[in-house]
Amino acid sequence: MMDFARTKALFHLPEGVTYLDGNSLGPMPKTAAARVAQTVTAEWGEMLITGWNKAGWMAQPRALGDRIARLIGAAPGSVVVGDTLSIKVYQALAAALDLRPDRRRVLSDRGNFPTDLYMAEGLIAGLGGRHELQVVDPESVADNITDDLAVLMLTEVDYRTGRRHDMAALTRKAHAAGALVIWDLAHSAGAFEVDLAGCDVDFAVGCTYKYLNAGPGAPAFIHVAPRLAGRVRPALSGWLGHEAPFDFEMTYRPGDGIERMRVGTPPVIQMAALEAALDIWDGVDMAALRARSVALSERFIEGVEAACPDLRLASPHDAGQRGSQVSFRFGEGYAAMQALIAKGVIGDFRAPDIMRFGITPLYLDEADIDRAVATIAAVMDGRLWDDPAYRQRAAVT
Amino acid sequence: MMDFARTKALFHLPEGVTYLDGNSLGPMPKTAAARVAQTVTAEWGEMLITGWNKAGWMAQPRALGDRIARLIGAAPGSVVVGDTLSIKVYQALAAALDLRPDRRRVLSDRGNFPTDLYMAEGLIAGLGGRHELQVVDPESVADNITDDLAVLMLTEVDYRTGRRHDMAALTRKAHAAGALVIWDLAHSAGAFEVDLAGCDVDFAVGCTYKYLNAGPGAPAFIHVAPRLAGRVRPALSGWLGHEAPFDFEMTYRPGDGIERMRVGTPPVIQMAALEAALDIWDGVDMAALRARSVALSERFIEGVEAACPDLRLASPHDAGQRGSQVSFRFGEGYAAMQALIAKGVIGDFRAPDIMRFGITPLYLDEADIDRAVATIAAVMDGRLWDDPAYRQRAAVT
Repeated sequence: MMDFARTKALFHLPEGVTYLDGNSLGPMPKTAAARVAQTVTAEWGEMLITGWNKAGWMAQPRALGDRIARLIGAAPGSVVVGDTLSIKVYQALAAALDLRPDRRRVLSDRGNFPTDLYMAEGLIAGLGGRHELQVVDPESVADNITDDLAVLMLTEVDYRTGRRHDMAALTRKAHAAGALVIWDLAHSAGAFEVDLAGCDVDFAVGCTYKYLNAGPGAPAFIHVAPRLAGRVRPALSGWLGHEAPFDFEMTYRPGDGIERMRVGTPPVIQMAALEAALDIWDGVDMAALRARSVALSERFIEGVEAACPDLRLASPHDAGQRGSQVSFRFGEGYAAMQALIAKGVIGDFRAPDIMRFGITPLYLDEADIDRAVATIAAVMDGRLWDDPAYRQRAAVT
Repeated sequence: MMDFARTKALFHLPEGVTYLDGNSLGPMPKTAAARVAQTVTAEWGEMLITGWNKAGWMAQPRALGDRIARLIGAAPGSVVVGDTLSIKVYQALAAALDLRPDRRRVLSDRGNFPTDLYMAEGLIAGLGGRHELQVVDPESVADNITDDLAVLMLTEVDYRTGRRHDMAALTRKAHAAGALVIWDLAHSAGAFEVDLAGCDVDFAVGCTYKYLNAGPGAPAFIHVAPRLAGRVRPALSGWLGHEAPFDFEMTYRPGDGIERMRVGTPPVIQMAALEAALDIWDGVDMAALRARSVALSERFIEGVEAACPDLRLASPHDAGQRGSQVSFRFGEGYAAMQALIAKGVIGDFRAPDIMRFGITPLYLDEADIDRAVATIAAVMDGRLWDDPAYRQRAAVT
């Protein structure tokens, strides 16, 4: 039995705050501050350059990757940490297109996070316009998987609605059509069980600052199926993906397997925070996490739907089609969210009318859900979104 | 008058260590630990998602870029921080090639750091083999700048020998030939005065963990000349380089000027360490720094040459042709460097026979130089490199 009261106690949660935005930036594990301080003062400060060996900085991207691999159902040695999610999307798509030189079409959907589409645009423009990025509605993805498809590139969970694609079915259909697949796990890793190996996924990417709780600016990760890793040509062929980085050769030779997806110097201090976050994840039973995520989500939906008739559920009613977030549509959603935040319940807003709430069982319990529901009801009943102070837009929302 | 005893007191230098490897990884500014801890506990911990606005995380890449701009003679608003140096090289070269669609040749030299060449290889392969990467000897660069050149891509200071290119002359010649230039300032930024604006440089990139002392895994930076920034097409078109990232549009529109060279989420915790490092740099007179770097380097060269006839200077004798490092060639250089490190004088080794010493006036003084010289002399006189323990190679050197 997972003890979620125990995991909750491992996080620092500010006084008076009910935090339902862990799908955007997870809270701080209590050990993170000391772990980061150790890397700064005891490692950087005392070991200086020798920290690359002595403190194991150089090996961290693979070691942390292996710990993430368990959470996403990937084989050990098939995940490496580094860069940002945008960069990892670019690497994956460049590698996938290179493996399908005879095909020109990349398929994605409007539920994908914009940066994935932007990075694909930039890559395709660089490739000289021979390729096409097709962006369809989420419901039309399956129908557009046909024999001319090069790469299917999707984010598993829609960042606005929490709607979840059927990874197994879409991957199977793409493979049957001779296409490769790239899954973005930004809202999957740490949100529920993922089975990359079982679904035979080719490439996956994700970030670690959302459900994994590794802090602002935490590095991304990339997975390449072991059957492909030795064959991919890295577009971002940096020295730490070289077979022998410290031989300083004049030409690039790709490293062994997933090593070749490393690029430049890894973000040592950010990795220390990720390590602290993974210390918690190492003990988490993902099936139990998912069960509790569903139970808390259902409780939240029922509570809000009963108390707030003006809020319309934007997420699927069926838990099987949802990630670990719940979204509601409301025309004045931006101002309503500001009012909610002012009352200590933090969710976020996505244009044009989505109020998002992350349901993160590691540090949320029934009392938090009930408090959030009561506060949302108070905001709605009191029409607090009418207050001009809540209507003013901030730079980052 | 710069007071270098004052700047030295701002760094944590481990007991018993004379650190001449600041050209590889700078030491820790004493304020870095507290500054990083503040970002972790007071910002991430307490502000959670609101830190993007409240703590100014989103604005940091430009704010830090402006502070670096002063050190490299670039206009305010022309530098942005993020990613790794490898990624920034890729961005710069992709943008430069896009501005010269009629030309196919990229010129670099064997003194360039390998990752720059590797990233160019990867980019060129992705572009379909229409381009050519020509890598010549450093002395032959000027002769190969002819009217068919697309881009001249060089690291100003050779990472092995410290030999420094003539940025002004080579840039002038490249421009006269209709080519664009990219300067890698990895061993320039914080090492001496750089005048990007005065040299009319098109693109420059650099890292912040060497002379700038921002810590292991610190982010890189990129400069684009203001006359070009509004015209470049970003190959790595990530959402934070979008004109309106939080509008979550389906297609990419490049941001204003240098903003478009941002890609993904910035490394917030690493940026805190960089901020602490730049607090020191803000007070540094670069001309005074250079004068002291030359004086300390001359003292070091004279001392070693007098005491160690077996060491052959690999750096130029003429200070005007050197960066802020001094290298010596010695066949048993690897083992000799290990012996030296065991005695508390930290430099590093680059194959096949280069012993490197960074001369960093912010925290090195005459006593350090004299101690280093005496220790090198002791290692050489005692033939300590003969000890098998010093011959064993570590993974990272």
